[in-house]
Order: sequence, then C-alpha cells, then structure tokens
Amino acid sequence: MPNPSFLGSALPLIQAPMAGVQGHALAAAVSNAGGLGSIPAAMLSLEALHAELTQLTALTQQPYNVNFFCHTPPPPDAARDAVWQQALQPYYSELGLLLADIAPGASRAPFSEDVANVVEAFKPAVLSFHFGLPSAALLQRVKSWGSKVIASATTVDEALWLQAHGADAIIAQGLEAGGHRGMFLTEDLSTQLGTMALLPQIVQAVDLPVIAAGGIADACGIAGAIALGASAVQVGTAYMCCPEATTSELHRSALQSPAACHTALTTLFTGRPARGIMNRLMRELGPLSPAAPTFPLATAALAPLRARAESQGSTDFSPLWSGQNASQCRNVPAAEVTRALARGLTR
Amino acid sequence: MPNPSFLGSALPLIQAPMAGVQGHALAAAVSNAGGLGSIPAAMLSLEALHAELTQLTALTQQPYNVNFFCHTPPPPDAARDAVWQQALQPYYSELGLLLADIAPGASRAPFSEDVANVVEAFKPAVLSFHFGLPSAALLQRVKSWGSKVIASATTVDEALWLQAHGADAIIAQGLEAGGHRGMFLTEDLSTQLGTMALLPQIVQAVDLPVIAAGGIADACGIAGAIALGASAVQVGTAYMCCPEATTSELHRSALQSPAACHTALTTLFTGRPARGIMNRLMRELGPLSPAAPTFPLATAALAPLRARAESQGSTDFSPLWSGQNASQCRNVPAAEVTRALARGLTR
Repeated sequence: MPNPSFLGSALPLIQAPMAGVQGHALAAAVSNAGGLGSIPAAMLSLEALHAELTQLTALTQQPYNVNFFCHTPPPPDAARDAVWQQALQPYYSELGLLLADIAPGASRAPFSEDVANVVEAFKPAVLSFHFGLPSAALLQRVKSWGSKVIASATTVDEALWLQAHGADAIIAQGLEAGGHRGMFLTEDLSTQLGTMALLPQIVQAVDLPVIAAGGIADACGIAGAIALGASAVQVGTAYMCCPEATTSELHRSALQSPAACHTALTTLFTGRPARGIMNRLMRELGPLSPAAPTFPLATAALAPLRARAESQGSTDFSPLWSGQNASQCRNVPAAEVTRALARGLTR
Repeated sequence: MPNPSFLGSALPLIQAPMAGVQGHALAAAVSNAGGLGSIPAAMLSLEALHAELTQLTALTQQPYNVNFFCHTPPPPDAARDAVWQQALQPYYSELGLLLADIAPGASRAPFSEDVANVVEAFKPAVLSFHFGLPSAALLQRVKSWGSKVIASATTVDEALWLQAHGADAIIAQGLEAGGHRGMFLTEDLSTQLGTMALLPQIVQAVDLPVIAAGGIADACGIAGAIALGASAVQVGTAYMCCPEATTSELHRSALQSPAACHTALTTLFTGRPARGIMNRLMRELGPLSPAAPTFPLATAALAPLRARAESQGSTDFSPLWSGQNASQCRNVPAAEVTRALARGLTR
C-alpha cells in the first residue's frame, strides 16, 4: 500500500455514499481494497446506523467515511401535501391503492446531537456532509474525535462557504453526478456546472484539497480529474452493480440498459433535485414538477406506489438514481472496481 | 513550432467557431499563434463568406477551419409563427414596436453546393459541421480538396454515426459548451452529458481522434481533456472577450459579470437548444418554451426586440451565448489566450 492519502485511506478514492443502494458490505469491500468506503446515513434510524457501523467495523480495520445530510426539516404543510396527493391520485387509482395508505413522517433526518452520540463511539476517519455543514458546535464535536470533515459544493460560492465554515476538503460535485445535488446556498439550477467547468474553478478558489465527483467512472476519468487539479475523486455509479451493493434487481437492470443514457434532475422523489434515470413518473409529471412538496416530504406519498409497482416488476415510480456515466456498471466485486479505478491515479 | 497536429495546425487546439461574435480577425490571430482559427459561416451570405475567407487568407498563411450547419430548413409554418408572435406581443408593445416590422426569412442556411462553390477556391485545412454532416456527394467533394472533416457529437450514438458517415475526427461536445447543442439524432435533452461523462465514452467507442469541447477554459482544463483521452480540444468562451472578437460591449460585460454564473439551454433565440447567460426573456418565457418555432425560424421575430433593447443598453432579448465556464473571459489578445491554453497540452 502507498502512503495514506489525506483522507487516511491508501488511495485518494472515495466510494460515494448512496442511500438506498448500499451499506456496510460495499463500504467494507472498498475500504479493504484501499479506497475510502462510505456509509450513507441520511435514511438510517439511530439503531440502524449503529448496526451498520458495528457490522462495518467487524469487516474492516481500514478508514471509512460516514455521510449525513444537513438540511433543515421543513414544517408539515397540509396544503402542499394535498396538491401532491392530487397529482398522484390517478396512479393510486390505477394501482388499486388508497391515499389513506400513506405513512406520514420524514424519510431523511439531518445530522444531530443524537446522531453524533451514535457515531462518537466509532470515530470515523472521515465524515461527509451534503447540503452544507452541521452547526459550529456539532462540527467542533466531530472534529474533536479526529474525524476529517468533507462536504459537497456545487458552485464556487458554496466551496468558499464550506472553507470558511471549517471543512477540511471540498467535494466539487459536477452536474453529471447521480443522486441529490448538494446545493445549499441556491436553489437556482442555472448555477449548476458540469465537472469540467466546476472543478478547476473550485481548485482555483480554495486553499483546501478538492475531491472531484460527477461523471467519473473509469481510470481515464480519474486521470482527467487529477489533471484538472483534484486531490482525490469520488465515484458512485460505477459501484452500483457490484455484488456487495444492495441495489434492487430492477435498478441494476436499468443501469445496465440503454435507459441509463437518459437521466435528468428530478424533484419528484424527495423534493430536492437529484439525478436519476428517466422513468414514467418523470416523463408524465415532468421531472421538476412544482407539485412535489419540500424536501424530504415528497417521498411519503410515493412509497406505496413504488412498493406496489416494484412488486409487479415495474420501475414507473422508483427513484433510479444514476450519474450520467453508467457505462462501467458491471456485476464485478467492489475490490476489482476499486483496483481498476486506481490505475487512473498513477498515470 | 512543434510538428503539425492531425488538424494541420501546430497545436491541437481549435478556436470554436462562434457565429455573431467573431470573424476573420479572431480566426487569423489564433491561427497565427499556432492554434486552428475558425470562421463561423452559418449566418453568412455567400458574398459575406467569400469576403471573410478573403480577409482571413490575407492575414494568415496558417491552417484554419470553416464551420457550417447541416440542418434541413423547415417549411414555413404560419400557425407556429402566430403563436410565437403572440408570446412576444407584450414585449413589442412595451418597446413601441410592431409585429409588422418583422423581416421574414431564415437567419441560418445549411451547407450546400452553392456554399461549396465559394469555399472550394480556399480549400480550408478543416471544415467542421454542426447538426450532422452534408450529403455524401457534398462530403466527397469537400474531401477531394484535401480538407479534413470534423463534426460535433453529443452522444455516443452520434459519434458512431459520424464515424460511419465519413468524419475524420469527432468533436465530443459536452453539456457545458456554449451556443447550439450539436445534437442531430435526438431532440431528447436527457441524453446530453457533461464533458467528463461524454468524452471518455466517445473515446472508447470510436477509432477516430476525438476533440473535447465544453467547459474547457484554461491550461488545466486542456490537461484534463487530454488525460480523458482527447487528441485535441476546442475552446470558445475563453476567446469571446479578446479584442479581435466582435462580441458586443453588452455581451462582453455579461460574460465578465456574475451573471455569467447563470446559464441555461434555451430554444428561444433560434428554435434549437443553445447555451447562453440567463436574461429576462429566458426567465419570463422559460428557456425551453414550446412557443418557439422550429430552428432557425425563432430568430426573425426576436430581431426587432433585440435591436431596440440593445440600442437602449439592455440585453433582455439578446442571445448571450456562453459556456458554463466564463471564468477566463478577459480583454487580452487571442495570441496570448492561445499561448496560455497551449501550456495545458504539454503537462
């Protein structure tokens, strides 16, 4: 193994945290192969988070990352929920479901003191944050464990904000990236740049190491990101069809089909823009429909539709998260993917 | 000077053809500095094209490129024109203009035998095409002069089509690029990829040299593109504020202001999606309004609004073409920009 990277891992290569499609098994495999495996924690209860970290640390002694969201949960909004349910009513009727089946409650919780209490026992090498950073006090607490703090920027302004507020490194999240845009200082999508445009501007603007994310799927992409000034890279989509991922069979099929050449940013599944493969709901409502409630409240009303449709073999209502480059999605072990990617670090 | 690149120029660096903001002066300056200067010909009459090429060849002995569009001109459509004029009527009223002031006629003509008759006397080193390729007979004629033919691809499918139909090299036009998307096999914007995702996929798919375009604005960007597998790069926006460009003062100001951090694909100005800086018309009608007629018929009804508004110092109705990375737009000579960019070729 070479000397550790600034992330603590042997390789400056992060397996992107991907909620809903992976957990400790993928993270452990990547960390054991020298990369920085990640646990996506935003959708986990405190108990589930504890279980994930316990299982992960039983599988690897290597450094790892745990990822959290930093949104401010919105107040309930019955009026917007009603608009959303009205937009979905035809699908409920079609699938023989009732709006009364919707289980209330948020699908994603932000980082908090309670979460920190769970994490503290594990002292991860790295904590990564999406949608900004936690409060100064919480950030201080995390750093007191020795954990490095990294966070996503989608604009130069966000990168400068993260630097000023104590991040140890910046993830430059280009528009190609799958899943949620990390944007937190703006909701204006006209500010969102491809990696080729965003990365060198952030490298120039900040004094911190910059981690490139978005569209990077092979050794060539990593070599390109390094040449553009990145100190490390974060790769997500290329790991989604590994046996260690928990990606559904339907989602794996979509990623390995021509459908994966058609992605868009959509607010339908959570309320925030996130990139996924086009499906029926996105086509019919429009991927950025104003009917979707505030993040993360859009999810609840979709859950019954998704469950019923998936049970019938349909992805019509599923969030098929994917970046713009699914060309490397194959059913090969994560260690092999990591080794193939690492070749781009030494070109 | 090093050995000529496959393009004939000393440097594998193309100054992107940018109709409306540059002509022979910029092209000559870039070609004389070792890059491949380009004449954008899509908006030129046969006489104007002849004049441009005459002036260019008086200023440089070096290789250059001439760029053409390959669209099929649509039939007139009075019903769509009426919808478009209705959408613009409030602006005509506001500016004291009459719809009767609209001069009919297309703003952009495709490559043709007549155009080839003008170009043949000059035998440019390179001809580049947007929106596909000319007919097999025309392509054969062009190649018989010894001109290399390059063309834009926005998807892997388009790259394979161009290779099968006789292109000598492929321009991989990433989503970051300013001006018109070169897409010609699809109108589906969900297929459009950032350079980081598109470039390595096209490099892998074709046996031809690939020219990277989109988001590349400095030496770092060029080094990144080369690492991603590009054999050459095409840079546009970084040249737009050179003294040799004909970019309007209003457009130059926008490019060098924070407004340039806000771009979008819009169909409003021509009927085809093209990237420009957000302005009032794009905000108020939506950048992809279905009211815009088929390319290139949207332009005619906007011309009076644009002329009147610009005369009053306003860019409300101007196409402010720009890529996503305007960070390098400065009032410095094109030779200096070319030399700065070239440093990325030898890293």
